[in-house]
Amino acid sequence: MDHLHHKRIQIVRRRLEEFDADGFLSTHPANVYYLCGFTGSSAALLVERGPARLFTDGRFLIQSRQEVKKARVQIVSGSLLAGVGLYLRRSRVRRLAYEPALLTMAQFGELRKSTGPRIRFTRVFGLVEELRQVKSSDEITRMRKAAQLALAAFEEVLPLIRPGVREFELVAEIEYRMRRKGASGPAFDTIVASGRRSALPHARPSAKVLRKNELVVLDLGAILDHYCSDLTRTVFLGRAPARLRCWYRSVWEAQQAAKRALLPGAAEGEVDAAARRVLEQAGLARWFVHGTGHGLGLEVHEDPRLARGQKKTLQAGNVVTIEPGIYLEAVGGIRIEDDFVVSQNGAIAFTKSPAELLEL
Amino acid sequence: MDHLHHKRIQIVRRRLEEFDADGFLSTHPANVYYLCGFTGSSAALLVERGPARLFTDGRFLIQSRQEVKKARVQIVSGSLLAGVGLYLRRSRVRRLAYEPALLTMAQFGELRKSTGPRIRFTRVFGLVEELRQVKSSDEITRMRKAAQLALAAFEEVLPLIRPGVREFELVAEIEYRMRRKGASGPAFDTIVASGRRSALPHARPSAKVLRKNELVVLDLGAILDHYCSDLTRTVFLGRAPARLRCWYRSVWEAQQAAKRALLPGAAEGEVDAAARRVLEQAGLARWFVHGTGHGLGLEVHEDPRLARGQKKTLQAGNVVTIEPGIYLEAVGGIRIEDDFVVSQNGAIAFTKSPAELLEL
Repeated sequence: MDHLHHKRIQIVRRRLEEFDADGFLSTHPANVYYLCGFTGSSAALLVERGPARLFTDGRFLIQSRQEVKKARVQIVSGSLLAGVGLYLRRSRVRRLAYEPALLTMAQFGELRKSTGPRIRFTRVFGLVEELRQVKSSDEITRMRKAAQLALAAFEEVLPLIRPGVREFELVAEIEYRMRRKGASGPAFDTIVASGRRSALPHARPSAKVLRKNELVVLDLGAILDHYCSDLTRTVFLGRAPARLRCWYRSVWEAQQAAKRALLPGAAEGEVDAAARRVLEQAGLARWFVHGTGHGLGLEVHEDPRLARGQKKTLQAGNVVTIEPGIYLEAVGGIRIEDDFVVSQNGAIAFTKSPAELLEL
Repeated sequence: MDHLHHKRIQIVRRRLEEFDADGFLSTHPANVYYLCGFTGSSAALLVERGPARLFTDGRFLIQSRQEVKKARVQIVSGSLLAGVGLYLRRSRVRRLAYEPALLTMAQFGELRKSTGPRIRFTRVFGLVEELRQVKSSDEITRMRKAAQLALAAFEEVLPLIRPGVREFELVAEIEYRMRRKGASGPAFDTIVASGRRSALPHARPSAKVLRKNELVVLDLGAILDHYCSDLTRTVFLGRAPARLRCWYRSVWEAQQAAKRALLPGAAEGEVDAAARRVLEQAGLARWFVHGTGHGLGLEVHEDPRLARGQKKTLQAGNVVTIEPGIYLEAVGGIRIEDDFVVSQNGAIAFTKSPAELLEL
């Protein structure tokens, strides 16, 4: 990894000129980890002409020494950003590029106050995120494992999905199994939503008991070796009415259509449109209230964004979810989600969803 | 709860004049939940002279209708802050108070761009956080339950803490048991750190196997009914050397001293000093590398902050952790943490730590 960190920091350093800057500051944990390997929750990484420098506090003294090889570590007491500012004031940096999407107004205020007026600031959007979007083969291997781990946990829990169990009990079982398989945690709040609650795309698990003749949406993901997965399965408790089986099939067809559109050079929005077209033809498009998918990696929501009208083009090495879904308030929801890597030969699925609604 | 939300929004509305503002905007999920009960992950709440208004996106259409009774809901497509800005542009608001600690530079940029120049902005720090600091008796009841739930999970896991088990396996067991007891999740990344790894105050659980004659630090907390708990226990595998038993006792004495100092009217820093003094007398203060504790509630780190030099005074109804710890790189760490509520009659512990190092 040290070699990778060195290379990544080098790329950032070289790109500073484009922004007419001689320093770049990141306080975003995922970016800090990507560039130097530090996993602590509070840190700022400064890339400048000389060696990169990681600022953190006393809680992370030992950890930073163990993890960080390609940056100098500086322990700050008090406000982290004020500490960075004091360093900058005495440094050679004159124009600092920072991440406005990740720095709060208050942090920026502290930083500017302690640097004094001599340093100028310039905004940079997605410099590190752009690098993170294209995964290396090592990252793809890790992400495939994270996806397969989530699926394995789901499959283990399948026999427990039956009338009488509570939503939060299934969440406990899913997260427990992901952990036992080596996940460092869930990649996001696991969703188990049953009956009419399944019509809430972001439902929180409740004490509601699962009942016969209900849809159940399970949305789960693991963090394995720092990388996230994101998987959704929809099942029915009992024998499903024909229209539900038919709707499920349309959502699945939408996922497959999006998968076929997931090619290097395609625009993000084209992938979304491919899924949406299938649901339009089935008369279900107005129940499809969110985008088709999103990139994932060190974070569970990254670029690219597979949503309506997005114009950026996909590249080989992008890893994304495809997760069409429909939500009918009086009936429930159906969502199907797997993770895919974009390759020159088309999209490759890390996991495969069943083409028919699973009846338990 | 609707009554509470109405009252809380009223307090904010009344305080707007102090900031010479006629509108207040919060995008922070904990503040949004506190003021209107919405639990979705993406929303902005606007408090103005007229009815409060919650902005969110299509994913939360149904959920927002179910949860929010004391604010009007407005569904935004595209950028949330741009949507808020467009509304503001046509509203009566002229001077908007916003939370610089919680709004990113990019969000603020979007907001300002879409409001146009007619609206002026003013910063407000901790307006809602200040209300949240003083817990109602209902909140205290919930938080006591959250703390006791964490302790019950720890006690169930105690027999599993033995040589041969891996750190992450214990994390899985702890989180599973918290969930089964009704927690909606862990309040933070659970820590199980053994041997020399226990000297990392914020260690991530690893695949390391626990061995005989090691210290093990377990730091865990539950979210129950939206409120957080935070508990740390340190145990020893085998018969502990006398110096470790002695150090443990000093850390425990430091916790008790801080508890006695935890009184309405005391300064935050005095509580920290009380703990630090005990460790100084034991010659251990230089290994105590973090603050003594922090407030908790809807978030796991809130005001008040029990750290060196903090000058704000404590009030009845504050709920805080007291968690002194010492960290010796070659030996390991010892930390003891429980949650307390400040009352007129002194601090009341939600859970009680053992006075002697537990030898397993």
